[in-house]
Amino acid sequence: MNTRHGNVFADSARSRDTEQFAALLAPPDLRLERIVSLGQATPPGVWLDQNEAEWAILLRGAAKLSFEGENAARDLKPGDYVNIPAHCRHRVEWTTPDEPTIWLALHYAA
Amino acid sequence: MNTRHGNVFADSARSRDTEQFAALLAPPDLRLERIVSLGQATPPGVWLDQNEAEWAILLRGAAKLSFEGENAARDLKPGDYVNIPAHCRHRVEWTTPDEPTIWLALHYAA
Repeated sequence: MNTRHGNVFADSARSRDTEQFAALLAPPDLRLERIVSLGQATPPGVWLDQNEAEWAILLRGAAKLSFEGENAARDLKPGDYVNIPAHCRHRVEWTTPDEPTIWLALHYAA
Repeated sequence: MNTRHGNVFADSARSRDTEQFAALLAPPDLRLERIVSLGQATPPGVWLDQNEAEWAILLRGAAKLSFEGENAARDLKPGDYVNIPAHCRHRVEWTTPDEPTIWLALHYAA
Protein backbone atom coordinates (compact mmCIF):
# COMPACT_ATOMS: atom_id res chain seq x y z
CA MET A 1 0.00 0.00 0.00
CA ASN A 2 1.14 3.52 -0.68
CA THR A 3 2.35 5.15 2.50
CA ARG A 4 3.41 8.38 0.83
CA HIS A 5 5.75 10.33 3.07
CA GLY A 6 7.98 13.39 3.18
CA ASN A 7 9.08 16.28 5.37
CA VAL A 8 7.14 19.51 5.50
CA PHE A 9 10.31 21.56 6.04
CA ALA A 10 12.25 20.02 3.14
CA ASP A 11 12.83 21.76 -0.18
CA SER A 12 11.30 25.04 0.92
CA ALA A 13 13.28 26.89 -1.72
CA ARG A 14 13.06 30.61 -1.24
CA SER A 15 11.12 32.75 -3.62
CA ARG A 16 10.51 36.43 -3.08
CA ASP A 17 8.27 36.56 -6.14
CA THR A 18 5.45 34.21 -5.35
CA GLU A 19 4.25 31.91 -2.64
CA GLN A 20 4.66 28.19 -3.27
CA PHE A 21 1.76 25.75 -2.99
CA ALA A 22 2.17 21.97 -2.95
CA ALA A 23 -0.65 19.47 -2.57
CA LEU A 24 0.04 16.87 0.11
CA LEU A 25 -3.29 15.06 0.01
CA ALA A 26 -6.38 15.39 -2.16
CA PRO A 27 -9.03 12.78 -1.42
CA PRO A 28 -12.65 13.72 -2.26
CA ASP A 29 -13.88 16.92 -0.58
CA LEU A 30 -10.53 17.61 1.01
CA ARG A 31 -7.26 19.29 0.07
CA LEU A 32 -4.20 19.47 2.27
CA GLU A 33 -1.41 21.69 1.06
CA ARG A 34 1.88 23.13 2.14
CA ILE A 35 2.34 26.84 1.57
CA VAL A 36 5.71 28.56 1.70
CA SER A 37 5.65 32.35 2.04
CA LEU A 38 8.62 34.69 2.07
CA GLY A 39 7.50 38.22 2.74
CA GLN A 40 4.36 37.94 0.61
CA ALA A 41 1.03 39.36 1.72
CA THR A 42 -2.46 39.73 0.32
CA PRO A 43 -2.51 42.81 -1.96
CA PRO A 44 -3.73 46.02 -0.31
CA GLY A 45 -7.51 46.35 -0.23
CA VAL A 46 -8.10 42.70 -1.14
CA TRP A 47 -9.97 40.26 1.13
CA LEU A 48 -9.78 36.50 0.71
CA ASP A 49 -13.27 35.00 0.56
CA GLN A 50 -13.31 31.22 0.05
CA ASN A 51 -16.12 28.83 -0.77
CA GLU A 52 -14.62 26.16 1.46
CA ALA A 53 -13.57 26.24 5.07
CA GLU A 54 -9.85 26.24 5.80
CA TRP A 55 -7.91 25.12 8.84
CA ALA A 56 -4.39 26.54 8.75
CA ILE A 57 -1.37 26.11 11.00
CA LEU A 58 1.88 28.07 10.89
CA LEU A 59 4.81 25.71 11.47
CA ARG A 60 7.81 27.95 10.87
CA GLY A 61 8.31 31.69 10.41
CA ALA A 62 5.84 34.41 11.41
CA ALA A 63 2.74 36.08 9.97
CA LYS A 64 -0.05 38.53 10.70
CA LEU A 65 -3.62 37.62 9.73
CA SER A 66 -6.59 39.98 9.69
CA PHE A 67 -10.25 39.08 9.84
CA GLU A 68 -12.94 41.47 8.67
CA GLY A 69 -14.55 43.19 11.61
CA GLU A 70 -11.62 42.71 13.99
CA ASN A 71 -9.72 45.77 15.18
CA ALA A 72 -6.22 44.34 15.00
CA ALA A 73 -4.32 41.72 13.05
CA ARG A 74 -3.52 38.46 14.80
CA ASP A 75 0.14 37.56 15.25
CA LEU A 76 0.91 33.98 14.31
CA LYS A 77 3.97 32.14 15.60
CA PRO A 78 5.01 28.51 15.09
CA GLY A 79 2.30 26.10 16.24
CA ASP A 80 -0.51 28.66 15.99
CA TYR A 81 -3.56 27.45 14.10
CA VAL A 82 -6.83 29.02 13.10
CA ASN A 83 -10.04 27.74 11.59
CA ILE A 84 -11.44 29.97 8.85
CA PRO A 85 -15.10 29.26 8.02
CA ALA A 86 -16.23 29.47 4.39
CA HIS A 87 -16.75 33.09 3.33
CA CYS A 88 -15.06 34.46 6.42
CA ARG A 89 -13.17 37.35 4.88
CA HIS A 90 -9.52 37.53 5.86
CA ARG A 91 -6.16 38.82 4.69
CA VAL A 92 -2.53 37.87 5.18
CA GLU A 93 -1.20 41.26 6.27
CA TRP A 94 2.43 40.24 6.57
CA THR A 95 4.83 37.32 6.48
CA THR A 96 8.37 37.70 7.71
CA PRO A 97 10.97 38.50 5.04
CA ASP A 98 13.69 36.92 7.20
CA GLU A 99 12.95 33.23 6.63
CA PRO A 100 10.39 31.09 4.81
CA THR A 101 7.06 30.86 6.59
CA ILE A 102 5.74 27.32 6.28
CA TRP A 103 2.03 26.61 6.61
CA LEU A 104 -0.19 23.58 6.42
CA ALA A 105 -3.62 24.43 5.05
CA LEU A 106 -6.53 22.00 5.12
CA HIS A 107 -9.40 22.97 2.82
CA TYR A 108 -12.58 21.10 3.63
CA ALA A 109 -16.34 21.13 3.15
CA ALA A 110 -17.83 22.31 6.44
CA MET B 1 -17.94 33.75 12.57
CA ASN B 2 -16.05 31.31 14.72
CA THR B 3 -12.37 31.44 13.87
CA ARG B 4 -11.37 28.92 16.51
CA HIS B 5 -7.68 29.13 17.18
CA GLY B 6 -4.93 27.83 19.45
CA ASN B 7 -1.35 26.61 19.51
CA VAL B 8 -0.49 23.00 18.85
CA PHE B 9 2.45 23.13 21.26
CA ALA B 10 0.51 24.66 24.17
CA ASP B 11 -0.64 22.72 27.23
CA SER B 12 1.12 19.54 26.24
CA ALA B 13 1.14 18.36 29.83
CA ARG B 14 3.32 15.34 30.27
CA SER B 15 1.84 11.98 31.03
CA ARG B 16 3.85 8.80 31.17
CA ASP B 17 0.69 6.77 31.64
CA THR B 18 -1.33 7.41 28.52
CA GLU B 19 -1.18 9.35 25.31
CA GLN B 20 -3.38 12.45 25.09
CA PHE B 21 -5.82 12.98 22.24
CA ALA B 22 -7.58 16.29 21.55
CA ALA B 23 -9.96 16.96 18.68
CA LEU B 24 -9.08 20.12 16.73
CA LEU B 25 -11.68 19.82 14.01
CA ALA B 26 -14.51 17.39 13.33
CA PRO B 27 -16.62 18.31 10.31
CA PRO B 28 -18.43 15.46 8.53
CA ASP B 29 -16.15 12.63 7.35
CA LEU B 30 -13.08 14.20 8.86
CA ARG B 31 -11.31 14.32 12.19
CA LEU B 32 -8.20 16.31 12.96
CA GLU B 33 -6.57 15.66 16.30
CA ARG B 34 -3.49 16.48 18.27
CA ILE B 35 -1.74 13.54 19.90
CA VAL B 36 0.85 13.93 22.62
CA SER B 37 3.03 10.90 23.31
CA LEU B 38 5.69 10.56 25.98
CA GLY B 39 7.48 7.26 25.63
CA GLN B 40 4.32 5.33 24.73
CA ALA B 41 4.29 2.69 22.01
CA THR B 42 1.83 0.20 20.55
CA PRO B 43 1.80 -2.90 22.80
CA PRO B 44 4.08 -5.75 21.64
CA GLY B 45 2.49 -7.98 19.02
CA VAL B 46 -0.33 -5.54 18.27
CA TRP B 47 -0.90 -3.94 14.85
CA LEU B 48 -3.08 -0.88 14.31
CA ASP B 49 -5.62 -1.52 11.56
CA GLN B 50 -7.96 1.41 10.91
CA ASN B 51 -11.15 1.69 8.89
CA GLU B 52 -10.25 5.22 7.80
CA ALA B 53 -7.15 6.60 6.17
CA GLU B 54 -4.86 8.72 8.33
CA TRP B 55 -2.36 11.43 7.43
CA ALA B 56 -0.01 12.08 10.32
CA ILE B 57 2.79 14.56 10.86
CA LEU B 58 5.27 14.64 13.72
CA LEU B 59 5.85 18.25 14.83
CA ARG B 60 8.02 17.82 17.91
CA GLY B 61 9.88 14.92 19.50
CA ALA B 62 10.84 11.65 17.78
CA ALA B 63 9.21 8.32 16.93
CA LYS B 64 9.68 5.05 15.10
CA LEU B 65 6.83 3.67 12.98
CA SER B 66 6.63 0.19 11.50
CA PHE B 67 4.51 -0.94 8.58
CA GLU B 68 3.66 -4.59 8.06
CA GLY B 69 5.88 -6.09 5.40
CA GLU B 70 8.70 -3.58 5.78
CA ASN B 71 12.05 -4.78 7.12
CA ALA B 72 12.84 -1.84 9.35
CA ALA B 73 11.00 0.79 11.32
CA ARG B 74 10.92 4.33 9.91
CA ASP B 75 12.50 7.08 11.99
CA LEU B 76 10.32 10.18 12.24
CA LYS B 77 11.73 13.59 13.12
CA PRO B 78 9.95 16.97 13.26
CA GLY B 79 8.22 17.80 9.99
CA ASP B 80 8.06 14.18 8.81
CA TYR B 81 4.65 13.11 7.60
CA VAL B 82 3.20 9.85 6.33
CA ASN B 83 -0.07 8.86 4.74
CA ILE B 84 -1.50 5.62 6.13
CA PRO B 85 -4.21 4.08 3.90
CA ALA B 86 -7.20 2.40 5.54
CA HIS B 87 -6.32 -1.09 6.79
CA CYS B 88 -2.60 -0.54 6.29
CA ARG B 89 -1.28 -2.31 9.37
CA HIS B 90 1.23 -0.31 11.35
CA ARG B 91 2.68 0.11 14.82
CA VAL B 92 4.26 2.90 16.83
CA GLU B 93 7.44 1.11 17.90
CA TRP B 94 8.84 3.91 20.03
CA THR B 95 8.40 7.53 21.04
CA THR B 96 11.15 9.38 22.83
CA PRO B 97 10.92 9.41 26.63
CA ASP B 98 12.93 12.67 26.73
CA GLU B 99 10.23 15.13 25.66
CA PRO B 100 6.60 15.10 24.53
CA THR B 101 6.16 13.98 20.94
CA ILE B 102 3.46 16.09 19.31
CA TRP B 103 1.56 14.82 16.29
CA LEU B 104 -1.22 16.10 14.09
CA ALA B 105 -3.38 13.28 12.77
CA LEU B 106 -5.98 13.77 10.06
CA HIS B 107 -8.44 10.88 9.78
CA TYR B 108 -10.37 10.95 6.53
CA ALA B 109 -12.49 8.83 4.21
CA ALA B 110 -10.25 7.91 1.28
